[in-house]
Amino acid sequence: MKEVFKIKVTLVKNILEANTRIAEQNRKLFADRNVMAINIMSAPGAGKTTLIERTIKALKQNFEIAVIEGDIQSTYDAEKIAATGASVVQINTGGACHLDGNMISEVVDQFDLDLIDLLIIENVGNLVCPAEFDVGENFKVMLLSIPEGDDKPLKYPLIFNESSVLLINKIDLLPYVDCSVEKIRRESLKINPDLEIFEISCRKEEGLVGWYKWLEKKMEKR
Amino acid sequence: MKEVFKIKVTLVKNILEANTRIAEQNRKLFADRNVMAINIMSAPGAGKTTLIERTIKALKQNFEIAVIEGDIQSTYDAEKIAATGASVVQINTGGACHLDGNMISEVVDQFDLDLIDLLIIENVGNLVCPAEFDVGENFKVMLLSIPEGDDKPLKYPLIFNESSVLLINKIDLLPYVDCSVEKIRRESLKINPDLEIFEISCRKEEGLVGWYKWLEKKMEKR
Repeated sequence: MKEVFKIKVTLVKNILEANTRIAEQNRKLFADRNVMAINIMSAPGAGKTTLIERTIKALKQNFEIAVIEGDIQSTYDAEKIAATGASVVQINTGGACHLDGNMISEVVDQFDLDLIDLLIIENVGNLVCPAEFDVGENFKVMLLSIPEGDDKPLKYPLIFNESSVLLINKIDLLPYVDCSVEKIRRESLKINPDLEIFEISCRKEEGLVGWYKWLEKKMEKR
Repeated sequence: MKEVFKIKVTLVKNILEANTRIAEQNRKLFADRNVMAINIMSAPGAGKTTLIERTIKALKQNFEIAVIEGDIQSTYDAEKIAATGASVVQINTGGACHLDGNMISEVVDQFDLDLIDLLIIENVGNLVCPAEFDVGENFKVMLLSIPEGDDKPLKYPLIFNESSVLLINKIDLLPYVDCSVEKIRRESLKINPDLEIFEISCRKEEGLVGWYKWLEKKMEKR
């Protein structure tokens, strides 16, 4: 078993390095075509798909938006996104718990990138592994929903460290659960002082304007 | 990259086989010492630690209970469990997104198993990878919390398939979110018709008696 683990460590390193190379190729491709790509990560059920629906609805007048949906199996989320009118490609990872650079590279030619301004990549619902894999995005964005509790920065620091934006979702549930937004903010900023934080409720469409403005500003600068 | 992936597939198979061997050794050890072991899995923040606190409080008069806490880092949950008076050992996986048989085997001699009736193993918060790794438990138990939504059986079927018990937690939040317990039940039972399902609120201490009785019944039969 020890030897198996030794091979595993080396292999994981090789896989991460190969992934980074492919992710860099994706990033260069997106830059050449003037596409901004964001990688949206969270635990299962934190609200990624609803956030993407709202974001498309808010920005589709000004930008052409495409979506890559990552799921272990099913096309459930992709169908919801397709209903917004955005182009969407589903990746089924077949058991794998995260997207990687290669998966994105394999599907990206299904879009005409010259027509796209913003590519939204919805990762597999998982607070651990997605944060380890660069897919070639410009920014990683994470959602943490209020019912998950305020201990998540302490327990899953990598994803907070890797993200540019933290969207604290489901703030409409604050009266009904034990969770301190103040503690989430404090612990998150300890890990990553540059983190942009917005408090939102996708369901109630609250607090989203700050997030839209952040995105629009980044789109202008691309 | 293709070749790296081919090696990876073989290696993952080897690792899973090696894991199963070690898990079987753990299971035999637990049986020899008359310990029942349960492996508790869920997404981050679904309520595993609170469930374990409640369960210890309810059953500690009749059974000696020990806990293994799995976390990527931090001893936050282990401290909460220690406050109940139960013996607890913390495993920090150092980035790994699940517990495996080897991790359990490495810590289990920190307990005097002859004094323990029930060993509760709290897995890393993740709805994907923990379901793939047998740790030597007698039963896998999963929590799904209401705010995560009713599409989870469709999107993460493996964990529903592997579990003996599904605890639908945070039912006190039903009035405030869009989630159908009926749909969770229907889709879960389609995947796993033998699944025992209990609707609970750990926070409000509701619906837990059925779960305690299920556990006690399994303890009698061990």
